[in-house]
Amino acid sequence: MIYPKPLEDLVKQLQKLPTIGPKTAQRLAFSILKMPGEEVIKISKSLSEVKTKLNYCRICGSITDQDPCMICTNPNRSHQVVCVIEEPEDLLAIERTRQYKGVYHVLMGVLSPLDGIGPRDLRIDPLLKRVDEKNITEVIIATNYTTEGQATALYLANQLDSFDIEITRIAYGIPVGGDLEYIDDQTIGQAIEGRRKISS
Amino acid sequence: MIYPKPLEDLVKQLQKLPTIGPKTAQRLAFSILKMPGEEVIKISKSLSEVKTKLNYCRICGSITDQDPCMICTNPNRSHQVVCVIEEPEDLLAIERTRQYKGVYHVLMGVLSPLDGIGPRDLRIDPLLKRVDEKNITEVIIATNYTTEGQATALYLANQLDSFDIEITRIAYGIPVGGDLEYIDDQTIGQAIEGRRKISS
Repeated sequence: MIYPKPLEDLVKQLQKLPTIGPKTAQRLAFSILKMPGEEVIKISKSLSEVKTKLNYCRICGSITDQDPCMICTNPNRSHQVVCVIEEPEDLLAIERTRQYKGVYHVLMGVLSPLDGIGPRDLRIDPLLKRVDEKNITEVIIATNYTTEGQATALYLANQLDSFDIEITRIAYGIPVGGDLEYIDDQTIGQAIEGRRKISS
Repeated sequence: MIYPKPLEDLVKQLQKLPTIGPKTAQRLAFSILKMPGEEVIKISKSLSEVKTKLNYCRICGSITDQDPCMICTNPNRSHQVVCVIEEPEDLLAIERTRQYKGVYHVLMGVLSPLDGIGPRDLRIDPLLKRVDEKNITEVIIATNYTTEGQATALYLANQLDSFDIEITRIAYGIPVGGDLEYIDDQTIGQAIEGRRKISS
């Protein structure tokens, strides 16, 4: 190949990122080449810093630069309500709504027998221990509404059944802005089943 | 924001790359977080190496890790034929065809009065000097078939007119695999104008 070695290396490395194929990697590599040196050094530094400076919170399992994390140590949040999520990034999606004031528990994945992921591969034992030892009153299961997410939710509900706590699941239904005409039957069915009285 | 600082920095840095918006930057940042540390170090190193180890060839202006570059120093190529291209990446596109055996000259852009890019901002003087001093017999102008590329081609043809060399332009026409029905009128018009005898 006519690429000089360092450029070829970069194109190869960039392809390890998700959704970056050979063509995108090449385009990115050339644009990096054209960037001012100090900008590239900044990106390179940021990359290594996320690996050296960030860690998982020992309590909730989210990504943090202090351990325990800012949410687990925040006295203004309810530490009796725990929201169970699949991945650290789900936390950001919920935090963006500014509606949730409890704490989190990250499973680090979802039950998936086909991929060989069983209960022991997820942070389920730490969750049970947390519910057992801390004064927790409600666990909101916020795994995704996928087959795996649903199976995980059911499994968790079973495991938590022996504790005297409320176990809830985030609501199914029509997404905000959703147009009935274009929404799948299953979602509409669930939305009707989950209907609530309109308080007047 | 709930992001830990190093993660926020990385999301910001990644957005400096072309076609990477806030959502893609976030997705990439999280996947980088999940990669093994040594993989991330490799990417980070590759990034800084393209800036420290690569340079522009003093003769043709292409990107290289040795100066002059591998093509300019290759005794098996014709150094009498120079192909003029807009950007270093165009060289790769032509090399991939394995059909061209001459050398290159990178302009480092294209004439674009609206963006304030005039002849002095491009590597046009070094091209004229090269044609004047080296024993060059043909200049192939391979700028893109855009308005700017065409204007640049015309400008170059004028500038090169006083030299006793052949000045050619890469051919217009139907792209390989092109279906007449779906090709714009201008391209078809040019393809008819540029028709060639079929040798039987």
